[in-house]
This record gives sequence, C-alpha cells and structure tokens, in this order.
Amino acid sequence: MIIETIKTEGLSHLSYLIGSNGAAAVIDPQRDCESYVERARARGMQITHILETHRNEDFISGAAVLAELTGAQVWHGPNPAEPVRYAQTVREGDSLDIGSARIRVLETPGHTDDHLAFALYDTEFEQGAVGVFTGDALFVGDVGRTDFYPDRAREVSGLLFDSLRKLENLGDQTIIYPAHGAGSVCGAGMADREFSTIGHERANNPLMQITDRETFIATKVAENHYKPPYFSIMERLNTEGGSAMPRVAVPVPLDLAGLRDAGADRVIDTRSVTAFAGAHWPGALCLPVGMITAFAGWFLKETDRIVLVSDSMEEARAAATHLRRTGFDNVVGAFTKMVGAVANGQDFALTPMVDVACVKARIAEGADDWTLLDVRSIDEVEAYPIEAARHIYVGHLNEQWRDLDPGRAYTVMCASGARASVAAGWLKAQGFERVDVFLGSAGAWKADAE
Amino acid sequence: MIIETIKTEGLSHLSYLIGSNGAAAVIDPQRDCESYVERARARGMQITHILETHRNEDFISGAAVLAELTGAQVWHGPNPAEPVRYAQTVREGDSLDIGSARIRVLETPGHTDDHLAFALYDTEFEQGAVGVFTGDALFVGDVGRTDFYPDRAREVSGLLFDSLRKLENLGDQTIIYPAHGAGSVCGAGMADREFSTIGHERANNPLMQITDRETFIATKVAENHYKPPYFSIMERLNTEGGSAMPRVAVPVPLDLAGLRDAGADRVIDTRSVTAFAGAHWPGALCLPVGMITAFAGWFLKETDRIVLVSDSMEEARAAATHLRRTGFDNVVGAFTKMVGAVANGQDFALTPMVDVACVKARIAEGADDWTLLDVRSIDEVEAYPIEAARHIYVGHLNEQWRDLDPGRAYTVMCASGARASVAAGWLKAQGFERVDVFLGSAGAWKADAE
Amino acid sequence: MIIETIKTEGLSHLSYLIGSNGAAAVIDPQRDCESYVERARARGMQITHILETHRNEDFISGAAVLAELTGAQVWHGPNPAEPVRYAQTVREGDSLDIGSARIRVLETPGHTDDHLAFALYDTEFEQGAVGVFTGDALFVGDVGRTDFYPDRAREVSGLLFDSLRKLENLGDQTIIYPAHGAGSVCGAGMADREFSTIGHERANNPLMQITDRETFIATKVAENHYKPPYFSIMERLNTEGGSAMPRVAVPVPLDLAGLRDAGADRVIDTRSVTAFAGAHWPGALCLPVGMITAFAGWFLKETDRIVLVSDSMEEARAAATHLRRTGFDNVVGAFTKMVGAVANGQDFALTPMVDVACVKARIAEGADDWTLLDVRSIDEVEAYPIEAARHIYVGHLNEQWRDLDPGRAYTVMCASGARASVAAGWLKAQGFERVDVFLGSAGAWKADAE
Amino acid sequence: MIIETIKTEGLSHLSYLIGSNGAAAVIDPQRDCESYVERARARGMQITHILETHRNEDFISGAAVLAELTGAQVWHGPNPAEPVRYAQTVREGDSLDIGSARIRVLETPGHTDDHLAFALYDTEFEQGAVGVFTGDALFVGDVGRTDFYPDRAREVSGLLFDSLRKLENLGDQTIIYPAHGAGSVCGAGMADREFSTIGHERANNPLMQITDRETFIATKVAENHYKPPYFSIMERLNTEGGSAMPRVAVPVPLDLAGLRDAGADRVIDTRSVTAFAGAHWPGALCLPVGMITAFAGWFLKETDRIVLVSDSMEEARAAATHLRRTGFDNVVGAFTKMVGAVANGQDFALTPMVDVACVKARIAEGADDWTLLDVRSIDEVEAYPIEAARHIYVGHLNEQWRDLDPGRAYTVMCASGARASVAAGWLKAQGFERVDVFLGSAGAWKADAE
Repeated sequence: MIIETIKTEGLSHLSYLIGSNGAAAVIDPQRDCESYVERARARGMQITHILETHRNEDFISGAAVLAELTGAQVWHGPNPAEPVRYAQTVREGDSLDIGSARIRVLETPGHTDDHLAFALYDTEFEQGAVGVFTGDALFVGDVGRTDFYPDRAREVSGLLFDSLRKLENLGDQTIIYPAHGAGSVCGAGMADREFSTIGHERANNPLMQITDRETFIATKVAENHYKPPYFSIMERLNTEGGSAMPRVAVPVPLDLAGLRDAGADRVIDTRSVTAFAGAHWPGALCLPVGMITAFAGWFLKETDRIVLVSDSMEEARAAATHLRRTGFDNVVGAFTKMVGAVANGQDFALTPMVDVACVKARIAEGADDWTLLDVRSIDEVEAYPIEAARHIYVGHLNEQWRDLDPGRAYTVMCASGARASVAAGWLKAQGFERVDVFLGSAGAWKADAE
Repeated sequence: MIIETIKTEGLSHLSYLIGSNGAAAVIDPQRDCESYVERARARGMQITHILETHRNEDFISGAAVLAELTGAQVWHGPNPAEPVRYAQTVREGDSLDIGSARIRVLETPGHTDDHLAFALYDTEFEQGAVGVFTGDALFVGDVGRTDFYPDRAREVSGLLFDSLRKLENLGDQTIIYPAHGAGSVCGAGMADREFSTIGHERANNPLMQITDRETFIATKVAENHYKPPYFSIMERLNTEGGSAMPRVAVPVPLDLAGLRDAGADRVIDTRSVTAFAGAHWPGALCLPVGMITAFAGWFLKETDRIVLVSDSMEEARAAATHLRRTGFDNVVGAFTKMVGAVANGQDFALTPMVDVACVKARIAEGADDWTLLDVRSIDEVEAYPIEAARHIYVGHLNEQWRDLDPGRAYTVMCASGARASVAAGWLKAQGFERVDVFLGSAGAWKADAE
Repeated sequence: MIIETIKTEGLSHLSYLIGSNGAAAVIDPQRDCESYVERARARGMQITHILETHRNEDFISGAAVLAELTGAQVWHGPNPAEPVRYAQTVREGDSLDIGSARIRVLETPGHTDDHLAFALYDTEFEQGAVGVFTGDALFVGDVGRTDFYPDRAREVSGLLFDSLRKLENLGDQTIIYPAHGAGSVCGAGMADREFSTIGHERANNPLMQITDRETFIATKVAENHYKPPYFSIMERLNTEGGSAMPRVAVPVPLDLAGLRDAGADRVIDTRSVTAFAGAHWPGALCLPVGMITAFAGWFLKETDRIVLVSDSMEEARAAATHLRRTGFDNVVGAFTKMVGAVANGQDFALTPMVDVACVKARIAEGADDWTLLDVRSIDEVEAYPIEAARHIYVGHLNEQWRDLDPGRAYTVMCASGARASVAAGWLKAQGFERVDVFLGSAGAWKADAE
Repeated sequence: MIIETIKTEGLSHLSYLIGSNGAAAVIDPQRDCESYVERARARGMQITHILETHRNEDFISGAAVLAELTGAQVWHGPNPAEPVRYAQTVREGDSLDIGSARIRVLETPGHTDDHLAFALYDTEFEQGAVGVFTGDALFVGDVGRTDFYPDRAREVSGLLFDSLRKLENLGDQTIIYPAHGAGSVCGAGMADREFSTIGHERANNPLMQITDRETFIATKVAENHYKPPYFSIMERLNTEGGSAMPRVAVPVPLDLAGLRDAGADRVIDTRSVTAFAGAHWPGALCLPVGMITAFAGWFLKETDRIVLVSDSMEEARAAATHLRRTGFDNVVGAFTKMVGAVANGQDFALTPMVDVACVKARIAEGADDWTLLDVRSIDEVEAYPIEAARHIYVGHLNEQWRDLDPGRAYTVMCASGARASVAAGWLKAQGFERVDVFLGSAGAWKADAE
C-alpha cells in the first residue's frame, strides 16, 4: 500500500494517490490530472476511484476529466441543493477496498455542508485506522474555516466541532492527510509541517483543544477570513465538472509587436517584485509566479485576455498553469524580453522601492498629499498596528481603489513588500501615478524600532 | 537560426524543427506532436508552418493535429487524385521566411508524386543554400524507394533521377536533412551517419553517382522492397488527417485476471527475444519494443484489441507509443508480471533457442518432418544463401503461413535470431506447435563455417 | 519542517532527510550520498548533522563521505569494542535542533548494541513526539532481527523488548520512520506499507503485542535468519568509513572482444530470469537487477572483477550502483548485445524453464540421477513443504553446492522461479551441466494441487 | 557514426562527442566533464581519445580530468614553449580511427600557435572529408581572433590566412564544427546559426572571401579585441591540467546571518538587471547568470571568496557552474531571499533605471557634476557614437574606474542597459554613490531619434 502526496505549490494544496495491489484512488485531484494517471500506471496501478472531500472553492477539481480519462467513479458528499454532476453521492459508513486499503466515509460537515473525510484501514493489520484524509476539516495545527455560509455561521461552526470529535474518535494513532499544507492561506495557524496524527493534533492543535462546543463556536465566529471573487467561479465549475487543461502547458511566446498587438485585458508581470520595481511594462500587474494563486483571483475576470511578462518561458509555463488551475484560461501569450523591449524603443514604468528611513522621514514631514497604505490582513494589523498607515487589505483593493485619490502619492506596505508590490501594480494599472513600495515594510519597521 | 532534429526510434524517422527570431516551422511531424510545440515555445518560438515532404506511408503524420494546436499552416505537394485535406498545396518556387531562414519549395517526385524538398537559405548569408530537407528523395548513402506505383515503375524512377539532379544543383555546400536516418529500413544502403552534404553524397552515394538516366532506372527497377499492409492505412489517415494521441501515454496496467479477461485479439510480448524464448504467454506474438514499428504492421489489423506483455510499464509505454504512431490505437492494457503469473498457476509456453551445432546436426539427420525456415529479406538471401533452408520473408508469413504444415517442426532463422523470433511467435500463434529459433542464425552459420 | 524519504530499491532501505528553516539532517545515508546534498540545497537547506541508527550490515553507509562533502557532524551510538571512526558517540537524552525540529536520542539496543532511535519533536507544537526514526528496531508490522550475536541470543532479544517499550512510551501519536520498508528481507512479517504510528503498531504488530518479556525472547530466539557473508565486509567498512562512489555511475560499455578479454571473475546477467533462461553467456550468474542487493552478497567476493550482461546501459548503471552500494566496486564493464554476440559466433548456454506437469512427471518417473532442489527459506519450506524436494537455501549454495553431484540433473525451485534461476545460474557456473528451473515453482505446485 | 554537440551557454562554446561502433572521442571538453562520459556510455561507447583544438584561454579544459576518468589519450598541437602536461603532441597528418570515423590532424596556427583542426572522414564513404572540427580558426560567418601575440600580430594573421586555405582545400562539401557558436563574443561577425560547410563559408564568410594575404593581414591587424585578465589564469591551468569540479554543483544555501558572516570578498547578484535595479545587496556586483562567463573574468580575482545572491538555488547552481568553468572556485554560498532580508532589517541599495527622456533632459541641462558613461565596445561606439557620452569599455572599468571621480554622478549606458548594469554595480562596489542606468541605452536613443 502506498500513499503518494502530490503538492500543488502556490495553493499549498495536497492531493493524494493511494494504491494497493494494482488498484488506486485519487483524493481531491487538481485540474492538471494526467499526472495522477501517469504516476499510478508507472506503479502498475489502475485508478478506480476518485474521492472528493468537498466541493473545492479555491481551484478547479480535476475529478470530472480524470474520471473520463480512467473510467473511475467519483465519490462526493451530499449536496442536495447543487448536486455535483459528475459524481455519485456517498454517505457515512460507505466503504471501498483498494487492494488491502479499506476506505470508510465519514460525513464531516462544517467547512462545507458536503464535506467528507475518508478513514483508511489496512485489511491486513485491521485494528484501528492507520490514516484519515481530512480535507479542509482538520489541518496540521489548524482547522477549516467556517465562513462560507454567513447566515449560518454559528451552526456550521458547531457542525465542524462535531466533525472534529468524529475524527478524534478514530484514535491517536491515526495519521492525518489534510487537503492543505505548509504555506496555505486556508488556515492562519497551520504548521509548516505536513505530517501529523490525530493524537498529536489533539495535544497541540489549539482548535482541537477547545473541548467546549460553545467556546469553539465563539472562537470560529470571531475569525477573520477573506474570500476572493473567483471562489464563486470555482464553485460553479466544480459543480458542473471542469474542462481539461490544454495539451501544451507552455504559452505562446510573443515578440514585442505580438505583445503590443495582443489586445490584452491584463498584462501580468510574473517576475520577482524587485524586477517589477526595477522596470516594468506600463499598466502591468505585479503577480510573481509564486503569488498568482493567492492573488490573481482578486483582480482578474474569468474572461480576461491575459498576457504574461516573465523572465523565461519556463516561468511563463508555471504561471499559466497556476492561472488555469484557478480558472483563468485565456492566456494568449508570454513575453520574456523586457530589457530588449526598452532597447527597441518601448516605454517602461518604474515602481520604486523605498526604505524605512525614507518612510519615517515622510511621516515626519507630514505631507498633505501622501498616504502610507497598509495592505496586510486585518489579523496582522491588529497584531502589530502601524498607526501612521491607512489600512485596506490587498485583495479588497479590487474594489476599494475607488475610495482612493489618484491625485495623491501612495507608499504601499505589507509585512515584507511582496503584497505591497501586488497592490502597487494594481493601483498603477488603475491610473495612479505616484505609487511606491515600502520594501521591508512592517518587518523593517519593527527591526528599525528595536 | 536553429535546426533541431527529432528522431523517432524504431522508425528511424527524422523530423526537424527550424526556427529563427521567434518563429518556427516543423518538417514531417510525428503523430505525438505536442513535443514540437513544447520545444519551440521553450526556445521562445511560435510554430507558424508545418512542411510535409510527402504523404508518409510508414507513420501517422502529426500535421493536422499540430496545425490545430498552433494555428500553423500545413504545406504539402500537389496530389490531385487525393488532395491532403488539412494542407494547402504548394509548388516549385513557393517560398517562406521563418526569421532569417528562407525556405524554397523544390518539387522532387519519384518516391511519391507529391514529394517536395525544402531548400534552406540564410537571408543574412545568402549565397547558396545552406541546407535542404530531402524527405525520402535523398538519404545519406542511399536514395528513396520507387516501388509505390508498380505500373509506373520506370517512369517514377526516372522522375527521382531528375529530382536528384535538382538537389545536386543546390551545390556541394548544401547540408542535407533527410527524413530517415541510421537504422531505417527505408534504404538498404543508408549510412549509419545522419549528417552529410550534397557534395559528399555526390562523391560517395552509389545512386547519386549513376549519371546515366537509363542505368539509374534499371537499377531502381531491379530493387526489392517490401510493403507491409498497414502502409495503406497510413496513406488513408495521412490524406484525411490523423487524430490526436491519447492524453496519457502509459497503457492501463492489468493484473493476471485483467489480462485473461481483456478479450485481446493479440497479446504482444514486447520483452527481448531471449525473454520470449525463456517463457511466454501462450499465443503471444514476439515483438520486442525496438522491433514494433518495423514488424507490427505486417501482423496486426487496425482494429485489433491489443494487450502488451512487458518487463515494465515504461517499456509498455514505449511500445504503446510505437503502436499508436503506426495506427494501432486499441491498446487495452499491459501486463508486467510474467513470472508471477506462472506462480499463480498460469500456463506458459516456450520457444527454445537452438545453436548452430544443433541446426547442422538436424540437417545432417535429414528428418522428414523438419524444415529450416529462413525469414530474411530476399537481398540477404541472395547475398548469403543457406541452401538447406526454405525461404519466406518474415513479413510475408502474415499470409504465407498458410502454405506451411502445422504438423511439421520448424526451426526459424534470420541473420541473428531476432526476426526469426518474431516469425516463430507468429507461427505459434497460428497453432504451429513445434517451432524453435536458430539463435545466431546466418551470423553464427557464417562464423561456424569460417 | 519537511521529511523526505529516500528509498533504495533492492535493499528496500529507507533513509530520510529532515529539514527546517535552512538546516537539515540525514538519517542513515546510502553510499551514493551526493543526492542528499542536492535535495537539501535545492530546498535551501544546509546539512548540519548525519544520524546513524546503527552500524548497518547490509550496505555501505554514506556517512563518512557525506560528512566530508558537507562538514556535517555524524552521530552514532556507543560501540566501545569497535568505535565508528568518522562519528561522535551520542547517548540517551542527547538532543539536537534542526530549525524547529528537535531530535532526541533514544538508546535502543537489541538489533545491534549501538542501536539508536531518534525521537522527533516540533518545538512549535511541543506536546509529545510527532515522529521517531526507528532504524532496525521497529518496522511496520515487524521488529528487528536479533541474531547477530549468536552467543548472546537471549540477552539481545531481551534488550530489544526493552527498547520497544521505550518506543511505545513515546505515545500512540508518534509516526514511525523505520530503516526498511515494503519489500525488505530484513523482516519477514513486514507490511507492504511504509507509514504507521506507534499506536497502530501497538495494536497490530504481532511482536509489539507480546507483552511478556520471556515470551518475546523465546519467539525471537526461535526465528530463522540468513546472514550473507558480505555483511562482515559492510561491518568493517562502516566502522572505518566507506569511500566515495565513482564520479560516473554508468559502467564502461564493452563489445564482444572486450567482454571476452575482460578477465572477469564473474559475469553477472542482470536481465530478467526469462531472458536468462532463453539464452545466456556460458558461466554467467543470473542476478536480475532487482535481485542483486539481496543475493549478490552470497556469491561474490569483495575483489571479484565483475562484468555485467544487461539489456541496456541504463540497466547496467542500476546494477553497478546496487553492487557498489554493497561493496562490490570492481565492475569493469557491461555488455548489452547478447543476441548480436551469438550472431558473431559466440557460444551461448540455456537454462530452460520447465512447468509443473513436467516436474510432476519426473517425480512420478523417479529417475535415479535427478533431484528436485528447493532453494526457498526454511520458513517457507516449513509453511508449505514439497516432500519430493531436497532443500538447500539459495544463499547457502555458495558453499553447499559442494555437497551436490555435478553428474546429476537438478531442477531448481523456489516460490516462483526467480530465486531458483539465481541458484541454477550459480550451479551452472560451478560446472553443473544438467540444470533447469521449475517456473512457477511452489506457487504453480499449489495452484495445480487446488 | 554520431556527432553530438554539447553547447555551453554563456561561453557559447561548442564541444563535440563523436562516436562509432562503441568507441568515442571528445573534442574540446569543458571542465564539468562527467557528462561526456555519461552521454558516451549511455550510447554504449567508450571514450578513447580527447582532442584539443588549442590551449583554450576562455575556460578550463576538462581534458586532464576526463583522461583520468576514462583512460583516454589527449591529443594537443605543438606548443614547445609550454608543453601541455597531460597531452601528447600530435602533428599534421597524424590520424586516428574511431569505429568508421577517421580523424586527420591539420595544423592550423594563427589564433594560437598550437592550433589544430581535425578533419573527419567516413571510412565507409571515403571520398572527401565529411566534416572538420575547426576550433577557433573558422566560425560560421567569422574567423578566429589573432591578437594573442601582440608583437607578432602580422605574422600570426598571415598564419591564419594559410590555415584557412588548408581548411578550404578540404572541399565545399565539408561540414564545419567550430568551437564557438551563436552568442559567442569570440567573433563579432558570427552568424546566429551553428551549422555550415566549407563551401557556404567560402561563399559567404567575409573573411574567407579575402583572397589576398596582405589584405587579410591588414584587416585582422585592424580589428579590436578585448582580453579579460582571467585569460592568463586559464592559460596556466590549461597547461597544467585543471582540477575536477566539486561533486555537488549546488552551492551551500545561506541564511541572512550566513551571508553577513560569510566574509565574502565579492557578493555577486545573479538575478536579472531589473531585479538588481529594484533592490540589491549593498556592494553587490550585478552579474546576471547569463552574463557571468562574459564579464566575471574582468572583475574577479582567482582567490576571491564569492557569495551569490540569486532568485533560486537553481539559478545559484547555474551561476556557480559558470564561475567554476572559468576558474572562480571559491563560491562559499548562495542567498535567495532578498526581500525577506530587508523585512528582517537588512539595508538595501538601489541602482535606478532612467529612460531616454530623462537622459536627454540631463544632457540639455548640462550639469557640471554629471557624466553619461558609455561602456560599449569600441566597435559599437564607432558604428553609432553618442557624442554626449564619455567612453570606457565595461571590462576596462576593472582598472579605469580609478580615472573617474566618486564625487560625480554617472549614468551608465551600453546598447540596451545590460552591460551598463554590470558597470554600474561595479562602480557602486568601488564606492561611487550617484550611479544610475540608462535602460534602453543606445537602442532607445536610436529609436527616439527616428
């Protein structure tokens, strides 16, 4: 029996291939799903089942396409309002054998109504579960968010409390296999470690240690979460069944004329934030390849014609894959020669980096037409406020930029300068001209204060 | 300007990617054509043209699918009777620029009526052609076969003579890029070297040195060639435009029950000939992975349900790819555990190897019910005849096995034992029970005689 | 914090890279140790420590070379008689931080006197161990062998019992990371699963469930184990510190003359057992690439000049790597053209496969000069005896072939035919001429009997 | 017979593996020479000879180490003053067979005194050379530089003229395999194409078309070339025989403290020039990974302790390999978290990009304390002079920065902004504080002028 973890960087999403004796199942596949088939077949295994812990809201599920490629059955939890079209509904206690692996369905609502966990037993060593696929119910160090049904906030938090008890009952020895891992934004308290057990979580996970249902509900309801607009697209596609990825992942390379003529709705600069700062295409968004999955969904529309500006075609390939996994398919090409473009007469823009001394000097100066704009999350701001700054969360600038004044100067900050660069790129794309980035941001501020 | 050679093993087919300044063209693409797009885009190049030297008869052209993937135009020579549906017809003198690469069409009929060569010039160093894509007109050390129009044999040989003169006129300095290379069965005299020039061929290629048209025709008409039945399927598909490869190249892994229940029309053993000799699935054909493209097309029907018996899934993947390139798509699965199968009670068959001493003893013995069957090509037999043997070319056994007596014993030989194993497997699949293989074959016979 | 498992096929050995915040440690590295450095550095981690669970007896430790490559410290348990020269001795309770990973030494003698386990804690979630590297003390489904100190058999079994209790005390939630996994011969009862926890083992591992020390001792003392002679070479090298692997892993390719002139002490055929059966180099040992680590150590001497006969250079590379990991460095070359060799006049040998019907017929016949030789382990023989067979364990034929009569005919069997082929190759290399292999062996016998 | 071209990016150096019938030779191997052995052996070939066209001055030859790895003989031309220690001296007409490839030595002095070309014949198609390895004598579109013996300038130019005639005599059909290709700085007129023939060069190469010896000499003597100081180190090492590359190519990852404490003589920023512009380590040199081989040799000393600042460990690995190929071995580590460093309180520096409008405005302004510094080559300056600029070649700033005034402001320009960034980084490292980069440089200037 093998379990292979397939991690999707950016999303920090964990999918799993479990196999035994020539059969295999996939848990929560990504849209680019050929690799599951290749991995399974390379091991001499046929994929017979696809198990979804819930209708994912942050990426396109590959379940429908994978089912078509393999003939496998898709299992999904009950979702009476919007039944998932490509799946069969399974219930508490349903079970399945993959070679000597026995998988038992646990209904674990809370994060979503249709949420399932899949307990894993070894029929040759059958005392107690050896593992459990916990989806977005239980992570290492955290539990799932419960803000997706705003008018039922208390109810679903209570459901999650009950679901966690059900997981706890599997016993301390049970290894957990969650749907998100180190680096995910799906849980603020998540460990930077992707292996744990029910027992270790029971002893260490702060949310698992709340034994009182009401306290748990109160804690969950008080949490702050952000929900980018693309989530609702994902929910629709994951109900209908997503389409396959293109057969070639690398986007079309563009030359300078090609980029100018591409009719792009959005030019996305996937290079590093310092490269963006140094010189960038006028109007380009700053979305370094590792930040695309977290932030593109706030700023892009599903139908946007997208052109990438990248350091290499390899980087463009990775960026396009991230975009396609989250539903932005209209990548019309990639341009990799920013310096050459300027040498061919193309204008460029700058979004300079400024340091802590400069920012403090400006604050001291107290200029009328300048704002320090803090785009961190509300939790970060509460934990370490910068009094002098106005706060708008980076994602919320997708709409709230309208509340700002294009005539003013803005210095954008976050914790390090990364999200600030995303925000700065967005503001400049909206026509703000006097925008720079506080490199180091709250980190440098704190270091300077010490 | 780059030229990248993409060699398809088995077929010894050479396709080319030529690119310059962000644009690229592909010459004679294989069916698994995503890789051309990936190679081009990784170099920052867009494929704008697909050039076919002729309607290939030995593999499925990827031109139609590649055109769909890239939006590129397909160029093909005139074929009035059966115009290629996915291509535009081009003529002598038509030309095309890919960056600084200029490509000029040369009509070079002979091998086929629609045959083109593509002369290559560098517009920055423009004196004389720098190269020429010669298709199946001119190889390193040999020229194309001219047996595809049996009732116009002399005419088309003469056309090839004229086409070679046209190539010669490009000048000695012209590098040649043929469609087949070392290891190909498309030319018996081909060098084991894949680089040459018009000048080097003019001086060394025996067929290029025949300066008299009539002598050339007589030489070509006297050649012996074999034409496997799948060629006509390829011709049909390459007129219509082939379909895309499956999204996953590895076939479905089968367990023993799966193999038994697969309803296979043909079980193909892709392991080595010695592994086949050691123990094999009863009724399996012996087609080691490196021999599939040369011999499967003699023995398989387009619609056959095929199961592979392989040493590994990696080997099965390669075998399935070879089969699909030549139109045998119905690969239902692969089995990789021959020894385990027998340990689970499966019967097995043997096709033993015998040595030269054994064969000579049998000849000396002169048994009534035994035949030494030589499956080499007629050219090989004429060059080094084995008097004691009956000759039928390995491919011709696809029909001529009917002329043999299943009650007799056969020892099959070729030059080494490889094609003899293919033939032996085929005979056993037809119900012949007393078949063995002369390992070493004509090679060992000759060594023994010396 | 990451744990990356690096599995060495053949040995089914598991080594681990554990890293956090830019630092890393390696547990039980193999001799080809550059890959640990590459993996760590690719993740931005420096290897600062190398932890050995014990002086390994079945492969060359890479600790000394890895320490030299990285400057890392090697930790090893106390071995007063033969202190490991490249390591520092650590003791119960010693501990070490790798970023947020805290590692605590547990002395766990039994398998060897110097055996350590390394308990793993997360300093950010510090209640209880999250994992433990158990070396050869505890496997999934089995425990370590205790036969290495024959005159202290009861004592060391008792020590292992105590060590297992110490592991148990870490708590059910502790994930175990053993040194051997699915497919290893180091534990007969090992699961085909490489993930488990102390809790799951406590509930399921038959040896963990023996709560009485005396019963445990009696059980362990009654076990049968085999110890190939190369183990003592490994023990010496792992005390001194092994040498580095050659800079190029692929062996020198040989042509036929090269093979003939290589002065090989042993020709090793790394192809499949059926390929060996079909035709092989006279005098070659049958050691398919996947069986080398398990069986080469019975039949080779440390200084033997070795030539490989393989299907491909890739296979030869893998075979040479297996040999070098187990101390057989003198691989002078590889030959990959067995069929071609015979076609060039080389003699070949056969070791035919026979089936169950043939074997039963021979038994029934009761020929005087024929023996059915069963080379399975004593445990297998006791579990399913074949009355008609004489039993000698495959490895023990390294010496006990002297007790057999070269004038007799032998049919060799095991469970499937694989080890029988190894044994048959060995016997033929000793000059036995009438040897064949019972393909299917006990498996087919049983299937036939049902 | 195969020829495999192994291109070393950065140096645009071409080395070759030529093989036939199990034997192989390598022409002009790089220092990281294991890959030649792996490529040859994977093809079933033994490397028996290593052929050097001359003592290379721009990289460390791998010949000595490769000879040790393989037992192959090294052939080198006559160099009586400083005989190459690891090679045997060969002469005009010496020849060698590699399978069916026959290689004949041609003495072709001019670029260096010891320069050889190796004509290639196919013994099975023996009329005329099929190819020639031309080293640095003849390139596609250009010929070798003749400035290495300043006091014999006319003499060696004449020798090269004679050598080219010798190459010409091989015949138009001869394919050329030069030691440098597209992108190399070893010939200003080189084509962006790496395939050609003697005939195509005779018709197109401007230097080959000069038929008068005196005119050729006058032309060559009038050429401008730059010779970075590391060339003399290469000459010494390539006489003695270089040492092997480290066993692991990835450098040690450093955290911020590690970088601060590394005691680096030079911090090299291998990111793109725009990333450097955006924010960089104070005092770092700007040497993007693709520019290292061309420019590091001007600014580094052989013994410098080097630390890399890179976007990724993969980039750092490539950078370290480039440095080691050119003799800078002391790479003590790599840092990949520039943004994170600043968020941890690290200061950073800026080297801003300015555009053509800004530069023209400054010129118009005519500030006393500002200089536009043009770092292009003299040939570029002569071809398109910028009157307002002061010219110093980028490499010559290694010494001539002393002629500049650290109190002035400098805007550095080249053709695009790339070399200007290298120069700007160097000036800042020397303590110049007011330095920026004219992005677009001469290209943008010209575009603006049109």
